[in-house]
Amino acid sequence: MKVNGKAMRSIWVEPDGWSVGVIDQTALPHRFATVRLATLEEAAHAIRAMVIRGAPLIGATAAYGICLALRADPSDETLDHAYGTLLATRPTAVNLRWALDEITAAVRNRPRSERTAAAYRRAAEICDEDVAINTAIGRNGLPLIETIASRKKPGERVNVLTHCNAGWLATVDVGTATAPIYLAHDKGVAVHVFADETRPRNQGASLTAWELGQHGVPHTLIADNTGGHLMQHGMVDLVIVGTDRVTANGDVCNKIGTYLKALAARDNGVPFYVALPSPTIDFTVADGLAEIPIEQRSAEEVATMTGRTADGRIETVHIAPAGSAVANYGFDVTPARLISGLITERGVIAASRAALAGAFPERAGAAE
Amino acid sequence: MKVNGKAMRSIWVEPDGWSVGVIDQTALPHRFATVRLATLEEAAHAIRAMVIRGAPLIGATAAYGICLALRADPSDETLDHAYGTLLATRPTAVNLRWALDEITAAVRNRPRSERTAAAYRRAAEICDEDVAINTAIGRNGLPLIETIASRKKPGERVNVLTHCNAGWLATVDVGTATAPIYLAHDKGVAVHVFADETRPRNQGASLTAWELGQHGVPHTLIADNTGGHLMQHGMVDLVIVGTDRVTANGDVCNKIGTYLKALAARDNGVPFYVALPSPTIDFTVADGLAEIPIEQRSAEEVATMTGRTADGRIETVHIAPAGSAVANYGFDVTPARLISGLITERGVIAASRAALAGAFPERAGAAE
Repeated sequence: MKVNGKAMRSIWVEPDGWSVGVIDQTALPHRFATVRLATLEEAAHAIRAMVIRGAPLIGATAAYGICLALRADPSDETLDHAYGTLLATRPTAVNLRWALDEITAAVRNRPRSERTAAAYRRAAEICDEDVAINTAIGRNGLPLIETIASRKKPGERVNVLTHCNAGWLATVDVGTATAPIYLAHDKGVAVHVFADETRPRNQGASLTAWELGQHGVPHTLIADNTGGHLMQHGMVDLVIVGTDRVTANGDVCNKIGTYLKALAARDNGVPFYVALPSPTIDFTVADGLAEIPIEQRSAEEVATMTGRTADGRIETVHIAPAGSAVANYGFDVTPARLISGLITERGVIAASRAALAGAFPERAGAAE
Repeated sequence: MKVNGKAMRSIWVEPDGWSVGVIDQTALPHRFATVRLATLEEAAHAIRAMVIRGAPLIGATAAYGICLALRADPSDETLDHAYGTLLATRPTAVNLRWALDEITAAVRNRPRSERTAAAYRRAAEICDEDVAINTAIGRNGLPLIETIASRKKPGERVNVLTHCNAGWLATVDVGTATAPIYLAHDKGVAVHVFADETRPRNQGASLTAWELGQHGVPHTLIADNTGGHLMQHGMVDLVIVGTDRVTANGDVCNKIGTYLKALAARDNGVPFYVALPSPTIDFTVADGLAEIPIEQRSAEEVATMTGRTADGRIETVHIAPAGSAVANYGFDVTPARLISGLITERGVIAASRAALAGAFPERAGAAE
């Protein structure tokens, strides 16, 4: 999507033909800067320090991390070391392991002289496949927006609420929850997005609002507390969020607070959709509430806030009383019963075991 | 309640017998400081600049503002001027007008020589009446906590979730939503509070967590997104919030985000109570959603955050992208159907027209 009017992806090979460029997402929305990754260690650091984030982008960055390692030394030892180093950066990321396995399989049985080129080819394919999946999600979700638009009076916009960042910055391009929005906007449909701030890490304020603004999509930043009120007053036509994991039953694990928006959508008859690439479906888990452990993250994320001062410095301020305990749960689970549908690369399907197994029989079967 | 181990109120007459002390709430939770008000203008400024906030405390401060004005000049002109000046500080605050009317009625028909003393007497009564009402709310709400405590295993705590600040800092003492909590804690009941941060103004992080900590009540600060997840996992026994206005039907207008917590409570079978002094009931309004206009506040409150830096300075940082629109709705309406009960100074009653009119017939009748 666009930054400063120019189309770009979130990861690319630099003009030198081998080093890798990414956007420094830790500096957003205050400063747009790119980072050049030239070594395995630089790629691992970019993942570990959250210079880049989002499951598909983590996978793509890890794939290029293997490329950079093999370029320095195409030995089995280096391949194994790179795999282990990159996997350790975010051990719970399913996409990361998948991308590492893919790239390893593409090079393992080749002569050393061919490994580097094969790795770069497979890494580029992984990126293109991500964009293709997201574009398919966008095409499948687009009619949801167009149908609402067709009922609007002239001059009225379709209002979509989203939570956290499931935008192109979390993927290689297009995004998941944002895919139908970007496609609608680019097609000339009048769409406006309410972006939840998404405390405690503020991905909505820092990333979603920024990327929508750069691409020219009208949007309004709101506090996480606001969505229910907007829905009560008919100001939201549709909710679309992303997800970190969907269970075989259609329960959705996503950024903390998603469940509250799903409840408000249900209470006000607002459709609530979840956009996801099929690798996000975990057919080994059935009941999301009972089976998915919710990560507790650092208290600092709740107790502090980072932003830019009036004179342009980036500063972190402490907002909690000195002696107060703080809890920081990263995700919650939205039960399938609250979800209007799942927007996947194979179409919009019900959040149910039957629909998921029907749409992805090869994945469902493998998990049995 | 206690600050640094010492019992205090949020407003008091200084040892000189006439000037008025308040806590500078704009500096909390980072710095505890008191402010001495010696003139009408200083009292008006304290309300206007939100040095003090909360409907009952605004009313009490305005009452003392009249006292300070009359002490300088007990004329009718000064009385009228003081009334107008104070009313203009927060024109929509119902309690403010009520307190000004009370104090004016207490002095209007007296000789000038008696006015100042009469005003101070009535101001002190207004403060004592607030504390008496809140203590009654606490006594009436206490059994809700004690009943849950009686079912707990040894060592387990009663977990109460609250939103925003309806604590003693918003009143003269004890608070409304916090009243049953402080009474339970002081009685030795093991109670623990989850305090919602309450974006965008962070009253939960800045005020509720601070006052609970100062009084020694175990508590945990959480992001506003978190309550649903906690309720799904049985980690909240009871929700108690305050309110700015209750309609004749029992709909509750309170800080934005309250409605989302009420939905989560309903979805998980968690009791959801609203604590209120009866002046908060507005018998002239029936349907909260249709009839209560929701104030839009400054975008800056969403786009910025204030806290203390590592070296102890208070700094405001900007957290939104430069070009993003921001919306800031101050309150939402929780429909009566989601409310387990209203904790009032006359007992715990249903959130219904019949129950409200039955408990407060003199108020309901006057509005007809």
